[in-house]
Amino acid sequence: MILTVTLNTALDLTYRVPALKPHASHRITEVTERPGGKGVNVARVLAALGHEVTVTGFTGGATGRTVQDLLAATPGLVDALVPVAGPTRRTIALVDDRTGDTTQLNEPGPTITPAEWSAFQEAYEALLAPASAVALCGSLPPGVPVGAYAGLIRLAKAAGVPVLLDTSGEPLRRGVAARPDLVKPNADELAELTGSHDPLRGAQDARRRGARSVVASLGTQGLLAVTPEGRWHATPPTRLHGNPTGAGDSAVAGLLSGLTQQLPWPERLSRAVALSAATVLAPVAGEFDRGTYEELLSRVDTRGDVIASA
Amino acid sequence: MILTVTLNTALDLTYRVPALKPHASHRITEVTERPGGKGVNVARVLAALGHEVTVTGFTGGATGRTVQDLLAATPGLVDALVPVAGPTRRTIALVDDRTGDTTQLNEPGPTITPAEWSAFQEAYEALLAPASAVALCGSLPPGVPVGAYAGLIRLAKAAGVPVLLDTSGEPLRRGVAARPDLVKPNADELAELTGSHDPLRGAQDARRRGARSVVASLGTQGLLAVTPEGRWHATPPTRLHGNPTGAGDSAVAGLLSGLTQQLPWPERLSRAVALSAATVLAPVAGEFDRGTYEELLSRVDTRGDVIASA
Repeated sequence: MILTVTLNTALDLTYRVPALKPHASHRITEVTERPGGKGVNVARVLAALGHEVTVTGFTGGATGRTVQDLLAATPGLVDALVPVAGPTRRTIALVDDRTGDTTQLNEPGPTITPAEWSAFQEAYEALLAPASAVALCGSLPPGVPVGAYAGLIRLAKAAGVPVLLDTSGEPLRRGVAARPDLVKPNADELAELTGSHDPLRGAQDARRRGARSVVASLGTQGLLAVTPEGRWHATPPTRLHGNPTGAGDSAVAGLLSGLTQQLPWPERLSRAVALSAATVLAPVAGEFDRGTYEELLSRVDTRGDVIASA
Repeated sequence: MILTVTLNTALDLTYRVPALKPHASHRITEVTERPGGKGVNVARVLAALGHEVTVTGFTGGATGRTVQDLLAATPGLVDALVPVAGPTRRTIALVDDRTGDTTQLNEPGPTITPAEWSAFQEAYEALLAPASAVALCGSLPPGVPVGAYAGLIRLAKAAGVPVLLDTSGEPLRRGVAARPDLVKPNADELAELTGSHDPLRGAQDARRRGARSVVASLGTQGLLAVTPEGRWHATPPTRLHGNPTGAGDSAVAGLLSGLTQQLPWPERLSRAVALSAATVLAPVAGEFDRGTYEELLSRVDTRGDVIASA
């Protein structure tokens, strides 16, 4: 079983409007509801690939119940969310039908009490026992200590479970210092962590800070991996036009999938790039098209040892 | 008991954002949830005035459950909403902290099936028996026939219950033809119904079309009443600066309150104008301040027989 942790789960709403005009009144033409938060998105892709996945994190209030109802309707996912008093946040992606642009509105999430945070850590330790890998994903809700991921990484390592971290800012900085097996920053997150705008230098620096391996997601330029086994750069076979929402989460799912199947790095990276590209090209934001994924998989260009530092 | 009907109930969310920028990502700083839809707002004001009120209409899904939980926490309100399969809509008022302006996002509401519409009409007939007055408020959700209010007005009249209609467009046109006791259009709704931009002519025309009495809400200019008992114009004592959200619903509550207490028209109108003004002046949108209401009540200027057609 693969475990994904989403401390700031969400009910993701997508609203279509004919044209967004500040200070006007709008009739929403289409409403879509999805369970969200980065770890939930990763889990959904893993389940679609045929993996057994358990989702943990927090759930509360009416929005939390809706998230759990939607998870229950997703085959292959096991819901192990921990109940809290505050309501799970909503996020709203407001899509302007005229321009295709998206305006994002994110509720802050419930404030987690110290008792709730303790209850989560206990549940997490129990869930690590049967896990083949764990992914720690996304932002921290109010009340959770900024060093939360560092603590969860130490627990995973003590349990002998490979741990992937995908977050940003101070939680990433502290998490890296706890020596996770893998971090997957994007270019901005890597630059914020290391101060270097060169991805290779940044990835090398992140390794020095504690990450065993670093896979940086570089948007249309694919993935750059710096690992103890070598360096690779994997690029998608075509220019991608579409919605990048969820592409990073699909890459994380590909990396975890390849990790638990003990694939060599080039195959893990090809899988991650193909899933990410299939997500960008899918008509529904955050979903991926299986046919596109399978078609792209053999066409990802993954090169090793040819990377020179800029 | 006063009965209010809200066919398109809502979970009203108010989001505060530091500054709304289309196509950007926003962190919501404050989230407020209220049960909504015009008839629900009217009922809340009536309950605060000490009336027994029953709320009916439709409820469905997780949002409907939240609306019902919030209604249960409001003293003096009885929840007689009829369950439907589709989810109750959300509305979002996005308040820009910088400018104070509001951008409104309204979900369309669930599609009501013919069987659900029949079930509602049966429930409504049963609720009319103990009612001293009924208010039919707001828009129709998808699936409800455009002549819905006309049918509900005929049922109320057959039961001997005075009926107030507050809606717009074709549902108002058809409703007026069914001879309600009172309609409360605003200036735009009255102009759309009658083609006249002069409120007095418009109100007279609405009476010819079937309404026994017409009370037009004219924003800062107060209320104009054209009735079989005479004509009055009631104006607030001060210029009002504030949020007009819910001011019309508070006016409807004032009219119903005065109607069931068999007050003469000038007192009904003073109550409606004072409630409406106290709503505009309240710090929270749609609420009213009792102290302000009581202070304004004696100062509303209500004049009869001095109205000349423009």
